[in-house]
Amino acid sequence: MTVAPKARIVTLTTDFGLSDSYVGAMKGVLLSCCPDVQLVDISHEVPPQNVAIGAMRLAGAARFFPAGTVHLAVVDPGVGGSRRGIAVSCGGHFFVGPDNGLLSLAAPRTTPGWRAAELTVASAWLPSVSSTFHGRDVFAPVAARLAAGSTLEEVGEPTDAIVELGLRTPTVLEDRVLGIVSDLDRFGNLITNVRETHLNRRQVVVVSVNGRSIAGMSTWYDPAREFVALVNGEGWLEISVPEGSAAATLGAAIGTPVEVRLA
Amino acid sequence: MTVAPKARIVTLTTDFGLSDSYVGAMKGVLLSCCPDVQLVDISHEVPPQNVAIGAMRLAGAARFFPAGTVHLAVVDPGVGGSRRGIAVSCGGHFFVGPDNGLLSLAAPRTTPGWRAAELTVASAWLPSVSSTFHGRDVFAPVAARLAAGSTLEEVGEPTDAIVELGLRTPTVLEDRVLGIVSDLDRFGNLITNVRETHLNRRQVVVVSVNGRSIAGMSTWYDPAREFVALVNGEGWLEISVPEGSAAATLGAAIGTPVEVRLA
Amino acid sequence: MTVAPKARIVTLTTDFGLSDSYVGAMKGVLLSCCPDVQLVDISHEVPPQNVAIGAMRLAGAARFFPAGTVHLAVVDPGVGGSRRGIAVSCGGHFFVGPDNGLLSLAAPRTTPGWRAAELTVASAWLPSVSSTFHGRDVFAPVAARLAAGSTLEEVGEPTDAIVELGLRTPTVLEDRVLGIVSDLDRFGNLITNVRETHLNRRQVVVVSVNGRSIAGMSTWYDPAREFVALVNGEGWLEISVPEGSAAATLGAAIGTPVEVRLA
Repeated sequence: MTVAPKARIVTLTTDFGLSDSYVGAMKGVLLSCCPDVQLVDISHEVPPQNVAIGAMRLAGAARFFPAGTVHLAVVDPGVGGSRRGIAVSCGGHFFVGPDNGLLSLAAPRTTPGWRAAELTVASAWLPSVSSTFHGRDVFAPVAARLAAGSTLEEVGEPTDAIVELGLRTPTVLEDRVLGIVSDLDRFGNLITNVRETHLNRRQVVVVSVNGRSIAGMSTWYDPAREFVALVNGEGWLEISVPEGSAAATLGAAIGTPVEVRLA
Repeated sequence: MTVAPKARIVTLTTDFGLSDSYVGAMKGVLLSCCPDVQLVDISHEVPPQNVAIGAMRLAGAARFFPAGTVHLAVVDPGVGGSRRGIAVSCGGHFFVGPDNGLLSLAAPRTTPGWRAAELTVASAWLPSVSSTFHGRDVFAPVAARLAAGSTLEEVGEPTDAIVELGLRTPTVLEDRVLGIVSDLDRFGNLITNVRETHLNRRQVVVVSVNGRSIAGMSTWYDPAREFVALVNGEGWLEISVPEGSAAATLGAAIGTPVEVRLA
Repeated sequence: MTVAPKARIVTLTTDFGLSDSYVGAMKGVLLSCCPDVQLVDISHEVPPQNVAIGAMRLAGAARFFPAGTVHLAVVDPGVGGSRRGIAVSCGGHFFVGPDNGLLSLAAPRTTPGWRAAELTVASAWLPSVSSTFHGRDVFAPVAARLAAGSTLEEVGEPTDAIVELGLRTPTVLEDRVLGIVSDLDRFGNLITNVRETHLNRRQVVVVSVNGRSIAGMSTWYDPAREFVALVNGEGWLEISVPEGSAAATLGAAIGTPVEVRLA
């Protein structure tokens, strides 16, 4: 009987950038531990030490990967201090990284079957662990072992108390929703923290950002309109300038208030 | 008998950048549809919504890949509107993306055996298709299916009328060729739209850009010369400052006129 | 008997950036020559034509890869001129690139078993070799052949005289060490050319950069301190601003002097 090859995929999400050797060193460790793993970059351009943006990038991509994928994420301003390292099993995927909230959006604790382990098994790490680069010395070898078939129990001790990221949720009032811009993409689109469910199936009359009002909702980046507001492929309210940058045109940034008036 | 493993390679060319989750999400979809595919980035740094540059990047790299490679390209300002999605079979490769000219330089319709299909088979897409991200919801699953062995007929209906990119060609006169700078690379080299064939085997006397004259042609980036003009590895006339940036030194950009005087 | 699949890994380190088609073209050639190779980017963001930084990036990551890995590196301002192409076997790895010092930090000639070959076997290259892009036309096909099992002898002739990079070493005095900043990373950390061994197991009293004095050494990026000096995971003295950029705060750059006073 032929057994289909198990997908041994490890994704990487970091704030290391691609100029330095750090990502290459982690990939070398992963391949040394598990030579037939397939490595896939999610992003290495998370703003330095920005755990919230890292958590959003990881959550935005992780769920599209096949069951069995191991997601290695390192945005780790507290490396070498008292913060713990963890591995999480959630929805058929593994997640490995620092216990600072980075994994908590992609692998929410409320998911049925969620389990976590504090990384305490030093024999699963590189023989020598630096105090400045746990991504290479601890998290990469643990991720490789999980990809190669190890269980959570083989890399750590069960834990329930992990750090969860407190993201700002919008204020839902009678006739409007008060949110903020939570992310910008490369096209200058404003991704808000307002989800489709916050709109309660009511019609959107106007979306306002920085004194500018956008009437009604669109279903696509309609180039006939100066601004469009739409629900994007991830279920978030997004504001766009179809052939330009909403961020530049509206002078908006992460944290800028967004008001949605409902019919 | 041992059969050599079929190369299941999918390349990616987009204007998404590597900061956001978009490329990671597409790769997750590709690997979920076809777990043993090998993913290779051509570029994700195409300037936002610049179909012509995207087409040149794809054409510059695609032909070096082995037969059977699937090239997924997404520079798609019209996503969600009336533009069609297409898959093209050309020269032993597949190409998948929006029908806006993006694929037309790498897979020119004049190639013997060229065939195209409009993507009409919704069962080949993700179950739910957003109006803002066909790269993830339509093109990635179609590319994965082609990599896994599907035929054009299984993902769409034959079509002949695809959008072709109208690139500016140089004006060839008796004693000179009038072209433009069509691309800049990271080193500041100016790549022109003048091909070796436009020179008709005649000797180049002078190449002029922004009032600066370069006498004769070089065969390499000779550091003894302030400026060199040469025919590059792709067959284009290129202007370079060997240890600097021709773009900066000459104040040249895409569209800057270039004049070649022939003997 | 089942034989474990040989790891056929090729890493890439260049100054090509990821905007142009150059890296994609090289990857196409590698996969055309050896379809089951696994490609891993170390960095393509080496500053243009900066051989020393390229050599440091390669050395920082290469040693973490498994035995048998082929490291392809191209920072090649002299392409098309008289500089030679080489392949080096060192420590169970292969290295391929121009003979300009780029490979000499990762594969030092003093390593037991070190061997080098000048690339003279034209049948190992692409049929047509441009004078401007040996990365694609010479080095990539040679790297693929080595990954597929070729020996050094099959791609070139033995050579001993290769170019070695002359890096500045610190001046070690009775009570202090005088070094420089040799590299900056994405976080603005200053990596110096002072190694732990230069400190001779003596206690560090003060590290000074641009008139600023840092008392004593830390073991991690302690956020309670404005500045920290520590020995990083690679064994180098590093100066960091735990939640900021030491490069920006101290106005330091590559070449800035660093003084270490010892007890």
